[in-house]
Amino acid sequence: MALPTFAFPGTSNSAYPQNHAAAFCSYWLHGSDLQFHLHFKPTQVKKRSSGIQAVVKEKGLYYSQRPPTPLLDTINYPIHMKNLPVKELEQLADELRSDTIFNVSKTGGHLGSNLGVVELTVALHYVFNTPQDKILWDVGHQSYPHKVLTGRREKMSTLRQTNGLSGFTKRSESDHDCFGTGHSSTTISAGLGMAVGRDLKGRNNNVVAVIGDGAMTAGQAYEAMNNAGYLDSNMIIILNDNKQVSLPTATLDGPTAPVGALSSALSRLQSTRPLRELREVAKGVTKQIGGSMHKLAAKVDEYARGLISSSGSTLFEELGLYYIGPVDGHNIDDLTFILKEVKSSRINGPVLIHVVTEKGRGYPYAEEAADKYHGVAKFEPATGKQLKAASGKTQAYTTYFAKALVAEAEADKDIVAIHAAMGGGTGLNLFQHHFPTRCFDVGIAEQHAVTFAAGLACEGLKPFCAIYSSFMQRAYDQVVHDVDLQKLPVRFALDRAGLVGADGPTHCGSFDVTFMACLPNMVVMAPSDEAELLHMVATAAAIEDRPSCFRYPRGNGVGVDLPPGNKGTPLEVGKGRILIEGERVALLGYGTAVQSCLSAAASLEAQGLRVTVADARFCKPLDHALIRSLANSHQVLITVEEGSVGGFGSHVAHFMALDGLLDGNLKWRPIVLPDRYIEHGSQEYQLTQAGLTPSHIAATVFNILGQTRKALEAMA
Amino acid sequence: MALPTFAFPGTSNSAYPQNHAAAFCSYWLHGSDLQFHLHFKPTQVKKRSSGIQAVVKEKGLYYSQRPPTPLLDTINYPIHMKNLPVKELEQLADELRSDTIFNVSKTGGHLGSNLGVVELTVALHYVFNTPQDKILWDVGHQSYPHKVLTGRREKMSTLRQTNGLSGFTKRSESDHDCFGTGHSSTTISAGLGMAVGRDLKGRNNNVVAVIGDGAMTAGQAYEAMNNAGYLDSNMIIILNDNKQVSLPTATLDGPTAPVGALSSALSRLQSTRPLRELREVAKGVTKQIGGSMHKLAAKVDEYARGLISSSGSTLFEELGLYYIGPVDGHNIDDLTFILKEVKSSRINGPVLIHVVTEKGRGYPYAEEAADKYHGVAKFEPATGKQLKAASGKTQAYTTYFAKALVAEAEADKDIVAIHAAMGGGTGLNLFQHHFPTRCFDVGIAEQHAVTFAAGLACEGLKPFCAIYSSFMQRAYDQVVHDVDLQKLPVRFALDRAGLVGADGPTHCGSFDVTFMACLPNMVVMAPSDEAELLHMVATAAAIEDRPSCFRYPRGNGVGVDLPPGNKGTPLEVGKGRILIEGERVALLGYGTAVQSCLSAAASLEAQGLRVTVADARFCKPLDHALIRSLANSHQVLITVEEGSVGGFGSHVAHFMALDGLLDGNLKWRPIVLPDRYIEHGSQEYQLTQAGLTPSHIAATVFNILGQTRKALEAMA
Repeated sequence: MALPTFAFPGTSNSAYPQNHAAAFCSYWLHGSDLQFHLHFKPTQVKKRSSGIQAVVKEKGLYYSQRPPTPLLDTINYPIHMKNLPVKELEQLADELRSDTIFNVSKTGGHLGSNLGVVELTVALHYVFNTPQDKILWDVGHQSYPHKVLTGRREKMSTLRQTNGLSGFTKRSESDHDCFGTGHSSTTISAGLGMAVGRDLKGRNNNVVAVIGDGAMTAGQAYEAMNNAGYLDSNMIIILNDNKQVSLPTATLDGPTAPVGALSSALSRLQSTRPLRELREVAKGVTKQIGGSMHKLAAKVDEYARGLISSSGSTLFEELGLYYIGPVDGHNIDDLTFILKEVKSSRINGPVLIHVVTEKGRGYPYAEEAADKYHGVAKFEPATGKQLKAASGKTQAYTTYFAKALVAEAEADKDIVAIHAAMGGGTGLNLFQHHFPTRCFDVGIAEQHAVTFAAGLACEGLKPFCAIYSSFMQRAYDQVVHDVDLQKLPVRFALDRAGLVGADGPTHCGSFDVTFMACLPNMVVMAPSDEAELLHMVATAAAIEDRPSCFRYPRGNGVGVDLPPGNKGTPLEVGKGRILIEGERVALLGYGTAVQSCLSAAASLEAQGLRVTVADARFCKPLDHALIRSLANSHQVLITVEEGSVGGFGSHVAHFMALDGLLDGNLKWRPIVLPDRYIEHGSQEYQLTQAGLTPSHIAATVFNILGQTRKALEAMA
Repeated sequence: MALPTFAFPGTSNSAYPQNHAAAFCSYWLHGSDLQFHLHFKPTQVKKRSSGIQAVVKEKGLYYSQRPPTPLLDTINYPIHMKNLPVKELEQLADELRSDTIFNVSKTGGHLGSNLGVVELTVALHYVFNTPQDKILWDVGHQSYPHKVLTGRREKMSTLRQTNGLSGFTKRSESDHDCFGTGHSSTTISAGLGMAVGRDLKGRNNNVVAVIGDGAMTAGQAYEAMNNAGYLDSNMIIILNDNKQVSLPTATLDGPTAPVGALSSALSRLQSTRPLRELREVAKGVTKQIGGSMHKLAAKVDEYARGLISSSGSTLFEELGLYYIGPVDGHNIDDLTFILKEVKSSRINGPVLIHVVTEKGRGYPYAEEAADKYHGVAKFEPATGKQLKAASGKTQAYTTYFAKALVAEAEADKDIVAIHAAMGGGTGLNLFQHHFPTRCFDVGIAEQHAVTFAAGLACEGLKPFCAIYSSFMQRAYDQVVHDVDLQKLPVRFALDRAGLVGADGPTHCGSFDVTFMACLPNMVVMAPSDEAELLHMVATAAAIEDRPSCFRYPRGNGVGVDLPPGNKGTPLEVGKGRILIEGERVALLGYGTAVQSCLSAAASLEAQGLRVTVADARFCKPLDHALIRSLANSHQVLITVEEGSVGGFGSHVAHFMALDGLLDGNLKWRPIVLPDRYIEHGSQEYQLTQAGLTPSHIAATVFNILGQTRKALEAMA
C-alpha cells in the first residue's frame, strides 16, 4: 500500500488558543475539481518526531472526500491490530479520526464525543480482545470508532438511517456490542453484572466500562460503584473525563460550566492528584517484568508530576474502587501501557482509571465550538459548516414550549424551570437566558429533578420539569411517590413524545401516556399543534392543586397561528373539542395523532366520506360528554394516539365500558403504537412502520365499513 | 402531677454485652393484676448523676401499661419545649422513649428506628421551629417521636390503623410534616427544593433533612448531594448513621453486615475522622459567644479525640458539603449545642452533620435483636415478646416464592437472585442461606439492581430480581431500556402487588401491571394462589428468550395443595384456564382477584346463578382463544384485577376491540383499583374501599343483569 502524499487531519494541541489568527490556504483535492478554503491554522503545533503522519498532521487539512487511510484499511476487526507495534497505533488513531470526521460529515450524528475517544478506542481494542473481553460504552454516542474497528466500517455511511447502523451500541448489531445503550449511566451496573457472571461461570475475560464524567452525575453510577466496591469483582471502569459541559445539548448561547459538585472534585483530582496508585501498580509490576523497570520508572515520573502533598482519598476510593489517574487520554503509549498493566497485574477488585480527554479532539471546529460538536447535522469537513435542513416557516415544538414558558414566567414570578442536563434539548436554555436564577440544571439526575421540583412546589413555587418522555422513565417513582401521591402541582413537560427518528427505540417516547394517566391525581394532556402547546403550558401554569403533564413530539409545528407574545390561554381542564363534524365514523385523536386524523379525514372526504374528527386534548380527566356524544352519534369510534396500549385509548374504553357505551353496536377501534420496538430511521418511516399514517387511519375506516377495495387503495 | 414511684425505662449502654447473664425479677404492675417476668438486667449500667429519672432508669424496667411521663405530658407541641433547660431534655427524651415503646407495643409498627432518634428528635425540635423550619424525615419510619411532639400524641394508639395516623410522615396529617415519605432517599432532593424555594421567596427558615446511612446507598441521595453542593443553598443534612443492617427486613437468620462500600467509608469516618470541622465551628463561634469558650473548648476536645493525622476529605466534602461529625446522637447536650451553632453561624451552603445513633437504643430487646426490632408486631414490653398473629395453615406468598426459587436453583445452577436491601421482605434471605454466592443484596439501589441483573443475563445466568411492586417504580427505565428493549431474560418477582394494608398508599402496588404490560417483550403474569406462584417461578425460569415478571400479594396463601418439594412446573406461556363453567356471565380474574371471583361465584350460585370463572394467568401474552371463547358464549364479561386502569382489563379490551368482540352486544365491565389512593388500614378494609370484594363483584353481576335488589342484597 502506497503511503499517501496527502495531508492527514491534525491533532491540535489541547492548549490551542481559542482566539487564534485565522489563516487561509487553498488546495485541490486528489481526484476532485472542488476547491476548498480552509480557515484554520494552529498557531501552536505540538511537534512530533516520528514519520510521515506527523508531517501531514501538522498541515491540519481536512477532506471532503474520503481521506486516505492506508493503515485503517487493513483493520476490519480488532484481531488485525494485534501485531501492530505500539508506535503505529498513533497513525491508526489519526486515520480513524479522519475517517470518523468524514463519516459523520455525511450522515450527521454525534461527533465531539467520538473524536474524544479515538485513542482510547484504539488502545482498548489493542489491549483487550472483544468479544471475549467486554467493552461497554456508556450512552453509546462515543462508539463510532469502536464500530469502525469491529467490522462495521463499510456500513458507517448508513449510521442512524433506516435499516442502517444504530447511533448507539446495540447487541443485535455486533458481538462486539456487549450491551445496548442510549440512556446514560448504565454501564457500570451492567459491567458489574457481567463481571460477577463471569466469575460464577468460571471464565476469566476482562470487563471494561467506559463512562463519561457527565454520566457520573447520575445516581445509578453511584449505586453501581458502591456495589462494585463491595462485591470486589475484577472489572475496569474508565472514567472518560472530558469536562462535559453538562450535557451535549445544554449549550444554546455558548458554553456553560459543568453542573454538580462532582465536576469540582474531578478538577481537583486533575490538578493535585498525587498519582500514587501508579507507584503501586509499579510495585506489582516490578515482580512481573523485572528488567523493564526503566520504562516503568519513566512512566511513574511522568504521571507523578505534581506529587507533593497527599490530597487524601478520592470519592472513588471512598466507594471502594482502586483509583488510577489521571491519564492523558490522547497519549496512546500511556494508555496502552496502563491498560496492559491493569490487565496483567490483575489487581483484585474494581479499578477506576481516570482518563482525561478532550471532546472534539483533533477537529478544530469541534474543539472550538461551545458544544464541541456533540451532535451535528451533515457538515462540510473543510469548513465545519453544518448543513442545516431547509428551515420551514415553523419552529420545533421544543422552541414553542420554551417561548411559551418564558411568556408565562414573565407574568408570574413563581414559575421556575428544572431540567436534567438538557438545557438545549428541552429548550430551557432560552428560559435560563431570561431568568437565570429561576432555571435549574440538576445534571443527569432525573430522580432528583422530580423530587427537587416537588420540594419547590411545597414552597409555593410553580415548577415546570422538562424531561424527555423516555427519560421520564428514570424518575417514575418520584412522580408517583413524591408528586402525585402528595398532589403537588409540579408540571411535567414531556418532550420527544412518540417516535423520534434517528435516535431509535431507546429514545422513543412510547409509554408516557400509559404510565402517567394511571396516576390518580395527574392531569394528562397533549397538544395537537403548537398553538395548543402554548395553551397547555398556560393550562399547566394555572393548575395549582395537582400535578399535570403534557407531551409533545420531536420536530416542527404544523404552522398554525399563534397567540400574541406566545402567551397561551388556559384551557378548560378535561374538555376536548370537535374539529370536523361528520357522520358514521368519529376519529378521536390525542396529541399529534390529531393531525393524522385530519389528513385522513381529508382523504376520506375526497372519497365522499365525511367523518368526524375530535381533539381529545386531555387523556385525564377525559371529556366524558364529548365521548358520550361521539359514541352515541356514530357507528364507529376510532381512538388514535402515538403511544402504547394502556394509554389514551384504554382510558376511553374504560370509561365507555362503565358508561355502557360499548354495550350496543358501536365499533371501537384503538390505533396505538404497535407492540414492538420500532428501529431508528426517519420519523415518517417510523410512522409507516407503526401503522400510524393518515393512510393507515383512512384504510382502517374503510376496512371497518367493509369497503376493502377502498382500504387497499388508501394504502397504495 | 405526682412523680411516679415506678421504674422508668433504662437507657442501656451501647457497649452492653450481647451475652449478658439473664437475671430474673418479678413485680406487679400498678393497677394491674398481671404478673410479668422481666428477663433482663443490664450488667453494665451507665451511672447518671441527675435526679429521679436516672435512679429509676437504672432499674431497667418496662411498663405494660402507659408509663408515667410527667414532663412529656406538658408538651403537646414543640413550642412547649422551648423554655426547658437543656438538662431537662434528657428526661423528656427518656419519657418519649418509654412512651414510644409503649405505643408501638400496642399497635405494632417500626420500633428500632424510632428509638434511635429520640434524642435527635428532641434536639431538633428544641433548636428548630417547625412548621416554619422544615424537618424532613427520610423514609419516615423514624417519625413517631416527631409525631408525639407535634400534636399527635393522643392519636398514637391509632398508628397504621384504619383512619388512624400514618406510619410515615404525611403532609395532610400535620403542618409539621412538610414532606410525605414512605420510600427511601427522597428528602435531600425535597429539602433542597424547599431551600431553593425559600431563597427565591425571600424567606429565612431552616431546612433539615434527616436521612439514614442505609438510604444513602440510593443514587437519588447522591444526585441530590451533588446538586446541593453545586447550588450552595443553606440546608442541613443530618446523616443518621446507625450502621444499618442493609434494610430492616434484611435479617432472617441473624444480623448481616451492611452492604455497599459506603458503609466502610462511614466506619472509617467514625474511627479516624479528625473532627476539625468542629474547630472551625468553634472559630466562628468565638466571635459570637465570647465568654463561653470554656464550654466550647471542652466540646472540641471531646470530639477531637483521636485527632492525629489528617484523613483527607470525605465523600461528602467531595460532593461540596460542609461535613461536621461524627456526633454522638444520644447525647442531647452535644446535639443541641451543634445544631444551635450550625443554625446560628449560618455556614454558607449545605452542611452535613454526621450523627451516630444506635438502632433500638434504650430498649434492650431491640438492641439485642438482629433486626433491632425494625418492624414489629404488637409485643409485650416487659419481655419484648412479639404477639404473632395466630398462624394459619398457610405461609406468606413471599415465603412460597422464596421456597420455589430455592427449588428451581437446586435444579439449575445458573439461577441467581438479586434484591435491593430487602432480603427479609422478599424472602431472599432463605435463598441466600442456601446459595450464599448466588444471592446479591445491592443496597437500596433498584436502578442498579435491574441493570446489574441485565448484565448477569448477558453472561448466561438466570437472574431473578425480587422487588416490591411499588419499589419497581424506582427502576422503570432500567426495565425498559436495559432489559425489555434488549429482550434479556431477567425475571422480575414483584412482591406486595396490590393493596398492602398498614403501610398505606406509598407501598401499594397499584401500577405494575400497567407499566409492565405495555412493554413489548415482557411476559406478564400473576398467580391466583400459592401453587400457581410456584408454577410461575418455574415458568419464569424456563423463559430464556425474553424478560418476564409475576406479581403476588402481601399476605398468606389460600391453602391449596403444593407440588412436591415446592417445585413448580412451567406453564404454557399465554394460556389461561377456566375454573368454573357457567353461563351468561364470565368473570375473568387476574392474580389474587381470581379468588374474589371464585367467592363471588359461590355466592351467586347460592342465589341460583352459575357464572363462569376464568383465571387469565397471563396479562401478556393474552390467551386470545380463551377470551374469544368467553366473549362469544356469554352476555357479560367482567375483568377483575387488583391494579390500576391501563393494565389487564385494558389489554383484554384492546384485543377484543381489534378482534371485533366488542362490536356486538357483549357487555364488558372492568373492575380495577379505583382512581384514587387508598389510605392505610387492613387489607380487607382497603379491598372494601376499592370495591374489589367478592360482594362488589357479585353486586356488579346483578346490577348488569338488571337485578338491582339482589345487587343491594349482595352488598348488605
